[in-house]
Amino acid sequence: MKLLNLIPITSDIWTDEMDQYVSRFLLDGTEVVTRRIQHGPASIESEYDEVFASPEVVMMCKQAEKEGFDGIFVDCFGDPGVRAARESVNIPVFGGFEPAVFYALGISDKIGIVTVLPDVMSMLNGLIAKEGLRERVSSLRYVSIPVLDLDGLDKLTAALIDESKKAIAEDGAGVIVLGCTAMVGVKEAVEAGLKAAGFDITVIEAAQASLMMLETFVRMGFRHSRSTYLPVRDKGRVWWSGDATAEI
Amino acid sequence: MKLLNLIPITSDIWTDEMDQYVSRFLLDGTEVVTRRIQHGPASIESEYDEVFASPEVVMMCKQAEKEGFDGIFVDCFGDPGVRAARESVNIPVFGGFEPAVFYALGISDKIGIVTVLPDVMSMLNGLIAKEGLRERVSSLRYVSIPVLDLDGLDKLTAALIDESKKAIAEDGAGVIVLGCTAMVGVKEAVEAGLKAAGFDITVIEAAQASLMMLETFVRMGFRHSRSTYLPVRDKGRVWWSGDATAEI
Amino acid sequence: MKLLNLIPITSDIWTDEMDQYVSRFLLDGTEVVTRRIQHGPASIESEYDEVFASPEVVMMCKQAEKEGFDGIFVDCFGDPGVRAARESVNIPVFGGFEPAVFYALGISDKIGIVTVLPDVMSMLNGLIAKEGLRERVSSLRYVSIPVLDLDGLDKLTAALIDESKKAIAEDGAGVIVLGCTAMVGVKEAVEAGLKAAGFDITVIEAAQASLMMLETFVRMGFRHSRSTYLPVRDKGRVWWSGDATAEI
Amino acid sequence: MKLLNLIPITSDIWTDEMDQYVSRFLLDGTEVVTRRIQHGPASIESEYDEVFASPEVVMMCKQAEKEGFDGIFVDCFGDPGVRAARESVNIPVFGGFEPAVFYALGISDKIGIVTVLPDVMSMLNGLIAKEGLRERVSSLRYVSIPVLDLDGLDKLTAALIDESKKAIAEDGAGVIVLGCTAMVGVKEAVEAGLKAAGFDITVIEAAQASLMMLETFVRMGFRHSRSTYLPVRDKGRVWWSGDATAEI
Amino acid sequence: MKLLNLIPITSDIWTDEMDQYVSRFLLDGTEVVTRRIQHGPASIESEYDEVFASPEVVMMCKQAEKEGFDGIFVDCFGDPGVRAARESVNIPVFGGFEPAVFYALGISDKIGIVTVLPDVMSMLNGLIAKEGLRERVSSLRYVSIPVLDLDGLDKLTAALIDESKKAIAEDGAGVIVLGCTAMVGVKEAVEAGLKAAGFDITVIEAAQASLMMLETFVRMGFRHSRSTYLPVRDKGRVWWSGDATAEI
Amino acid sequence: MKLLNLIPITSDIWTDEMDQYVSRFLLDGTEVVTRRIQHGPASIESEYDEVFASPEVVMMCKQAEKEGFDGIFVDCFGDPGVRAARESVNIPVFGGFEPAVFYALGISDKIGIVTVLPDVMSMLNGLIAKEGLRERVSSLRYVSIPVLDLDGLDKLTAALIDESKKAIAEDGAGVIVLGCTAMVGVKEAVEAGLKAAGFDITVIEAAQASLMMLETFVRMGFRHSRSTYLPVRDKGRVWWSGDATAEI
Repeated sequence: MKLLNLIPITSDIWTDEMDQYVSRFLLDGTEVVTRRIQHGPASIESEYDEVFASPEVVMMCKQAEKEGFDGIFVDCFGDPGVRAARESVNIPVFGGFEPAVFYALGISDKIGIVTVLPDVMSMLNGLIAKEGLRERVSSLRYVSIPVLDLDGLDKLTAALIDESKKAIAEDGAGVIVLGCTAMVGVKEAVEAGLKAAGFDITVIEAAQASLMMLETFVRMGFRHSRSTYLPVRDKGRVWWSGDATAEI
Repeated sequence: MKLLNLIPITSDIWTDEMDQYVSRFLLDGTEVVTRRIQHGPASIESEYDEVFASPEVVMMCKQAEKEGFDGIFVDCFGDPGVRAARESVNIPVFGGFEPAVFYALGISDKIGIVTVLPDVMSMLNGLIAKEGLRERVSSLRYVSIPVLDLDGLDKLTAALIDESKKAIAEDGAGVIVLGCTAMVGVKEAVEAGLKAAGFDITVIEAAQASLMMLETFVRMGFRHSRSTYLPVRDKGRVWWSGDATAEI
Repeated sequence: MKLLNLIPITSDIWTDEMDQYVSRFLLDGTEVVTRRIQHGPASIESEYDEVFASPEVVMMCKQAEKEGFDGIFVDCFGDPGVRAARESVNIPVFGGFEPAVFYALGISDKIGIVTVLPDVMSMLNGLIAKEGLRERVSSLRYVSIPVLDLDGLDKLTAALIDESKKAIAEDGAGVIVLGCTAMVGVKEAVEAGLKAAGFDITVIEAAQASLMMLETFVRMGFRHSRSTYLPVRDKGRVWWSGDATAEI
Repeated sequence: MKLLNLIPITSDIWTDEMDQYVSRFLLDGTEVVTRRIQHGPASIESEYDEVFASPEVVMMCKQAEKEGFDGIFVDCFGDPGVRAARESVNIPVFGGFEPAVFYALGISDKIGIVTVLPDVMSMLNGLIAKEGLRERVSSLRYVSIPVLDLDGLDKLTAALIDESKKAIAEDGAGVIVLGCTAMVGVKEAVEAGLKAAGFDITVIEAAQASLMMLETFVRMGFRHSRSTYLPVRDKGRVWWSGDATAEI
Repeated sequence: MKLLNLIPITSDIWTDEMDQYVSRFLLDGTEVVTRRIQHGPASIESEYDEVFASPEVVMMCKQAEKEGFDGIFVDCFGDPGVRAARESVNIPVFGGFEPAVFYALGISDKIGIVTVLPDVMSMLNGLIAKEGLRERVSSLRYVSIPVLDLDGLDKLTAALIDESKKAIAEDGAGVIVLGCTAMVGVKEAVEAGLKAAGFDITVIEAAQASLMMLETFVRMGFRHSRSTYLPVRDKGRVWWSGDATAEI
Repeated sequence: MKLLNLIPITSDIWTDEMDQYVSRFLLDGTEVVTRRIQHGPASIESEYDEVFASPEVVMMCKQAEKEGFDGIFVDCFGDPGVRAARESVNIPVFGGFEPAVFYALGISDKIGIVTVLPDVMSMLNGLIAKEGLRERVSSLRYVSIPVLDLDGLDKLTAALIDESKKAIAEDGAGVIVLGCTAMVGVKEAVEAGLKAAGFDITVIEAAQASLMMLETFVRMGFRHSRSTYLPVRDKGRVWWSGDATAEI
């Protein structure tokens, strides 16, 4: 099968190393193709950024379906454009939030999420509320590191261990979900650091989780429900066209 | 004060009559200017439509602040782009959902919302969940009329009366919120029809409610909280530019 | 229009200054008449006090309707007698709790309320539960100052700033509601103090909010739902009569 | 021990038969004295009635404590004045709502309450919400019989059986609580009627339940918590005095 | 009447002193017979232990009904086998959790439970969730003392006072429920210690509460609902037989 | 990897056909070994049955871990012994409830479960409550067919289609979970029948879902959290031994 790893930001941050990391658990026959949007924000750290990322995300999802992709991972923990994409394609689409949290439900009664910045707390609380999972997510914290600085892995790892310890000790979390899909390559170090501090806790890396759940959905023939996501109606929709772009 | 009535669809549906209707309760000194987006959907009936409406909505909000508007009404019950706009401007912004429902909280213990199509039920349930108001909204129904056909007022009125009666009799609603800001000009007829059927129920028209709450916020100096809506961070954001457009 | 500001305590605390303060945002044509009960407690700091305040509150509401008042503000954050009044008059009635909290819903995802004493915490928690707003009110604190000492504005302001900072920093509140309608004249100083401490937070003063919402309800023709508040039935009701009074 | 059965209405409806019925399960050493208020409504069927019943209820509770009563049953399912009484006396006080519902929690996962009129639905929903029991009370229905007509036992029994069947079959209730303490003497007939219809369901009569729980509280030395119910503060409270009364 | 105090562990810990203590409030005519299981764990401190305790608990409940017992107390705060027993006998069955918590509902708005070990926190949270009482139980803490060491009463009392103070001061609890039925004989000392620390709080001992509620249920003829607990169906069930036992 | 399919009933119902059906989606390298308990009920249709199934389930889980199994599926929708097993083994253990419902969360906002008998409704509602998923499961229905009659596939399919239609049309479900792991081999026919009736709905078969999630957990190295499931403590535990058995 062929899955699209759709990076909903314009920054060229994706490396082969990241590619291998997030695909580690997939089957040999599962090919992952990475693409990124050309119009939108350099990173997503607000609902504002999500607004400008979502249109091309949705357009690329439709294009991917036409090209025969079997499933799409919108590579962002805020799920930008995911629900709109589900209305417009018939293949499974997941953002980074749901699969990681769903697997976490099977690991611990209380889930902790550690994300990037205070800027996204309100949006994530909204996702938790919409999912009806307020009772299971007992902790939502952030490391105070912008998305594009997450490649400083040592600093990131240390901050994640710090916040995770509080999530565990103060908020009762029994599993930690890394709350940003750009937190790639640190899960193991965070688990090790927590273990050294006496906390034998599973850390879920969101991209790995999403790709795995997409693979599962494709293998089992699951599709998003047409009673939650009704097909998009035909109507006029005008958009900018051409190659000209500008900073906004 | 000057309020912007921002129509988040490209259809040219706004009439002077509608303008006077929604502004009926405003103060003489409150000027309402109506504008609509040029890029986006002809109507909003899905999360898909919301994705394509939101960018220009947000851009126009920023522009309106620069021009000295005091507040902005994003004229749609789904609140497209509203949270993003709040992150990027310092003047009050409301969509159609919140003010109508907030006033309804002061009228009845159980609220009924009657909207347009099944297509938007999931999105509205999401708004209700995010607002933490699942316990107060006891009924969410639809009239099965597309947004652009809502100008058939007789048919709309009859359908609204029908669904409202079920909301009241079967779901216990004690107030009805018209769940689409294009349901303009029918509130009185619906109230009359319900009264004739033995239901002395207030019907809230969402655009009137939003403009009223904006006027209140401006008069009282209320602004959206910067701890829920953190200011947008500086970063690169690429967008289409130029005048060329195409249907998508 | 003419609104009644009904003080549900026997203490003669109302000053012209307070009158102007709470009416600041009202329209020129909105007249506010202040009256207070003659039978009841000197202040309201318990459900016990509410029991003894409520009968005359309700009687004065009925009287006010007869006299042609357009709306009634029961000037107390505990809403004493408000629901009973709604059953017995056809004009809008609000206490201090609902309008302030409803406007707060439009300002921040998480609301903090700072009230007077621990004595009223249980009653306010009951109001929050009845309103179905447990998910939105993240903080309920008190300043430990009796109602009749709230005119010591410096002490009150300092205590409000203190508790508000905890509500914001520890409980995540993004807006502060002053949880007693006698906390008059301090909102601005509290906002200034919070700003100086790095918290740019809106503070809502409850009486201003209630008078504003009453004005809105009158202008828009909203009335409390007769399916939540059924009209009072005819029956015998015996009460004390005459002018003799005693301390109880 | 000596318990006060405090009838919070002025109507002289209490009979020896009712006395024996509600006291059936009490210990020989438990004496029940019945008194009723002299100022207030003829029956309680609204929050309005509760407002006018509560003051003398509270005064009589205080008097009862002075006289050495061990516990007080405020004989009404709406719990009028109960919380205020708990603030002002040190002996246990229960209305009709809590004990019946608490025992019901031990009988069935889903509880049905059948009360008198639509007029009290909102108030009872408020009690359920304040108790945090929305998840356990799956059914709230009424028989459409005014309180003072509840002595027509055949009509009452038939109506209770009707509504209970719907509560069981449509709303999943597994136990029925009679939602008015004046529904005396019918529990057995309702259980028999339900059994004949194929529903082997326990029906809880509220007065019996409350007197039993009071007896238990006295025997076990339980008192209402002073952190929920803080003691009433000393202050001036003016009330009508003298014997003159009038209809209101 | 005759009640069975069914100890669901194999340890021979029951003393006459404990017997008198838990039966203190019962009527003279209420006989309590204590028995314990012969197959199962030495103590219950996990769901694992509950699994191995439950079968013989259920068998002994059935046997007790045959012998004419009127009610059964499964003497453990985790309610092992209680729901299964209710499906298979027609006499009331309670574990230690429900009655104590139900009485607590009538004492304070917020309930604190102090139990033995972190091992049982998840299971107790599950009971709280199943009961729909998440909104009322504001505190769940433990003393870090294994069940079989609870007979060190001084150490237990000190730890209970410590944790109760935190439950009260930090978590807002207004009543304390001893969260293990083997915490026998310390309630009074804990109340005294809390009072000395300024907290006039009721402490509920679970075994006393359960025996009292059973006695009430028997006196009032309450039985567990057959629509929540359907009768057990006839079918083949194979079990170990004979007297041979082994450690597992 | 090697997974244990642990049938928690004594009936010899497992066929190669069922084996292939539930394993359909697994990887070639995933071996599934089926075993069943020798002591316990012929089928599970009550909490009573769960009590007698659970001990040997747990013992067999421990044995399976010793033998090198990588994960265990306790083949029953009621999850008997699952939490206890998680406390005592270090390999993943799932019953039939969680994985099916977790995948359903990713398919539809509202989930419908159709199970066997009214007997298990209370138990399943308890699982839903413990999982904190009351807001997502909008429908719980049953087909009124005992577990051991589920091999009458035509009758089962027809009943499942009937109840699923109600779950969809009346309760708003957008995905159907087959609420019994013995409902094997009918998912496709149910989907076809629903499609023919105009409902294009995914049906999740629970055993397939559980084996898939176990496979995922093993591949990704996820284990159940030791802060939710603390390791079992050493203590004496007596059990029946020997080969003698009897019907109970």
